Amino acid sequence: MSVTAKIRVNFYDTDAMKVVHHANYIRWFEIGRVEYLRSIGITLNDLMEDGFVFPITEISAKFHSPGYYDDDLLIETTATELNKVKMAFDYKIIREKDGELLVTGHTQNVYTSRKTGKITRLTEKYYTKLEVAMKKELESQNV
Amino acid sequence: MSVTAKIRVNFYDTDAMKVVHHANYIRWFEIGRVEYLRSIGITLNDLMEDGFVFPITEISAKFHSPGYYDDDLLIETTATELNKVKMAFDYKIIREKDGELLVTGHTQNVYTSRKTGKITRLTEKYYTKLEVAMKKELESQNV
Amino acid sequence: MSVTAKIRVNFYDTDAMKVVHHANYIRWFEIGRVEYLRSIGITLNDLMEDGFVFPITEISAKFHSPGYYDDDLLIETTATELNKVKMAFDYKIIREKDGELLVTGHTQNVYTSRKTGKITRLTEKYYTKLEVAMKKELESQNV
Amino acid sequence: MSVTAKIRVNFYDTDAMKVVHHANYIRWFEIGRVEYLRSIGITLNDLMEDGFVFPITEISAKFHSPGYYDDDLLIETTATELNKVKMAFDYKIIREKDGELLVTGHTQNVYTSRKTGKITRLTEKYYTKLEVAMKKELESQNV
Repeated sequence: MSVTAKIRVNFYDTDAMKVVHHANYIRWFEIGRVEYLRSIGITLNDLMEDGFVFPITEISAKFHSPGYYDDDLLIETTATELNKVKMAFDYKIIREKDGELLVTGHTQNVYTSRKTGKITRLTEKYYTKLEVAMKKELESQNV
Repeated sequence: MSVTAKIRVNFYDTDAMKVVHHANYIRWFEIGRVEYLRSIGITLNDLMEDGFVFPITEISAKFHSPGYYDDDLLIETTATELNKVKMAFDYKIIREKDGELLVTGHTQNVYTSRKTGKITRLTEKYYTKLEVAMKKELESQNV
Repeated sequence: MSVTAKIRVNFYDTDAMKVVHHANYIRWFEIGRVEYLRSIGITLNDLMEDGFVFPITEISAKFHSPGYYDDDLLIETTATELNKVKMAFDYKIIREKDGELLVTGHTQNVYTSRKTGKITRLTEKYYTKLEVAMKKELESQNV
Repeated sequence: MSVTAKIRVNFYDTDAMKVVHHANYIRWFEIGRVEYLRSIGITLNDLMEDGFVFPITEISAKFHSPGYYDDDLLIETTATELNKVKMAFDYKIIREKDGELLVTGHTQNVYTSRKTGKITRLTEKYYTKLEVAMKKELESQNV
């Protein structure tokens, strides 16, 4: 079960090597997981209103091929772990027109209480949705 | 009375035309006014702790000459208006090694209450400092 | 005759005042003019392949109301001057859901030869398209 | 043998969680390796003039503690592999005032020919410097 977001490379995303600067892909992973969460009924605004923040704790990426100005890119996001204390996602960023795989990556974040700044557990309201999604992920991997 | 901040152009600040992307200069104006305020004893953290936010309301810039990767740039900031309701600054961004003028600009911001989101007046604590600085600016212009 | 592009505010576009950082709107003006040019049959890639670069020489913006994370924004771009030596555009950035006007702005850029770095004139191929567009702009203003 | 670069967190580096957005640390790793290379007599401009580009192929980071607006950060960079085909670096990003470790990370890049876009080997001119540096790194680890 992957959720796909689409973005277009802007001129300001490129650098003097005439390719997308690699740090931008790390930003775009965010677009991927936001859309994944939205697809299962969770928005960052809801989480923040309920007192949760969700700092990234780990990130990794491999850059396989360069992206260029005006490329349409697909960000395919798959959850690999969704539970009461953390979320982990895998990403593939693919150029739409030729299917070239540009970047693969992984991120992990934890839930933190806005008030205390300490790691906290998500409430039932959110957890139920994550549990359903994770079940689907595991089923789709077993097929 | 101008306050000078110094920055070095990073590779990620460039774009596929091999020059600094123009939007970065707008970000660097911020570095300039932050240093100006620090030089007169005001920090954004103090302002925020006291319930003020300070949104930019107007910006303008002229781009005279391109900046390049690894250039050392001087951001010279001068206040043109500092009062209880707003601050306005002029900027010059100059390449250090050859004195080339790259960018000139102007910004204006107002004080807003964090709570109400409405425009508000600065307290005496801050206003006194701004008043002293503005006086010096006017004097230095009259010399 | 305005051309509308649509973007969504990402979390990474916000700052610690919980609003869109103002420099991002300057980047988004770029999205606006790119889409305008695309709508009249001109792409930056074509221009660059033909040896043109097109540095921004002037920019101005007024920030009327803050944008927030996850807002869908409409960037409405209108040409105000399109000729052999320069292009100028007006922008309105509007929040889609409530029609709130967040930012208005203006930019100007000139054509420069990639080889010489000097200001140059666009070739007929491009100029004809710009001329047609500018004619339409003037007609629509006269209505 | 680590090389330390120093940066200050700008307001535009923060996000609506009032901390540094994590993608910025990935950008700052670049500042770290640029200063490392400069310290051993290699600049990116020289490499580019000699026809080399040096795309990042892998990146990883762990985010231990949040950085805040106006923090002075130390970027400590150590080379872990420097040879004719690639460079790899470890990074520690530390808040200066309290020594708090905010981020650790690792990057790898390869050398590529600007003309062919293919992976290439560095020339002797650069390789000798990298070899000396790598020797020092290994010696300092053995102490």
